[in-house]
Amino acid sequence: MSDIEESLTLQPRYDADGLVTCVATDAVTGEVLMVAHMNDEALRRTIATGEAWYYSRSRRALWRKGESSGHTQSVIELRVDCDQDAVWMRVEQTGPGACHTGRRSCFYRAAPLGQSAATVTLEFRDAERAFDPAKTYKPK
Amino acid sequence: MSDIEESLTLQPRYDADGLVTCVATDAVTGEVLMVAHMNDEALRRTIATGEAWYYSRSRRALWRKGESSGHTQSVIELRVDCDQDAVWMRVEQTGPGACHTGRRSCFYRAAPLGQSAATVTLEFRDAERAFDPAKTYKPK
Repeated sequence: MSDIEESLTLQPRYDADGLVTCVATDAVTGEVLMVAHMNDEALRRTIATGEAWYYSRSRRALWRKGESSGHTQSVIELRVDCDQDAVWMRVEQTGPGACHTGRRSCFYRAAPLGQSAATVTLEFRDAERAFDPAKTYKPK
Repeated sequence: MSDIEESLTLQPRYDADGLVTCVATDAVTGEVLMVAHMNDEALRRTIATGEAWYYSRSRRALWRKGESSGHTQSVIELRVDCDQDAVWMRVEQTGPGACHTGRRSCFYRAAPLGQSAATVTLEFRDAERAFDPAKTYKPK
């Protein structure tokens, strides 16, 4: 493991599905915009082009962020973690938001701390819509 | 899916191993400190106590962050993403760092963009040691 930890060669540790986890944060505000996955092709295209590419597990397809919405992500910096199974990108988000629900970030609900009941209640935080998904994602 | 996206009830979508992905960012600087996993017990303990608990895939064990190093994490805010398979925590990191290699963050290497060769070269960024792992993690 120490080779992977201290090496200056990219050696992604893909999971059984061939994926690493990718966190995209807003380069200006630091907020986490989204957590998604990359396969080898998505990671290499992102590094080569500076535009965010992901792999959609549900659609089983390579996916350039913003290809249908126009809300692309320009990568400012891309880092890997100690064991090279996670990627952190600081991005400039084009357009109003990153989340397909119409919010700027996918993380628009918080779980107030101190709850120990079986059912945990969430609260909306920064949950106003930045765009209308129905108008942004046109049926194909 | 829209129920999971708009609901104010926590309904984590655990993967086949019973885990969700968790991103911990520094509540002060916004830097990503680490990406790890939580099982149901870790997520519930974190919400109940406000201290970060994770599940170690390699050790197959519940793990209170800092239980061996002393470098605990106090959770300031915990959010879930749209499809409830990822958690974002803003934390106050106790002690010099979050990474077992001795760095403050696990993300101490960057891949400069524009590289399209088969071998991608990394650069150290913020990679100075904040503590000595050999002295911090005592053999049991």
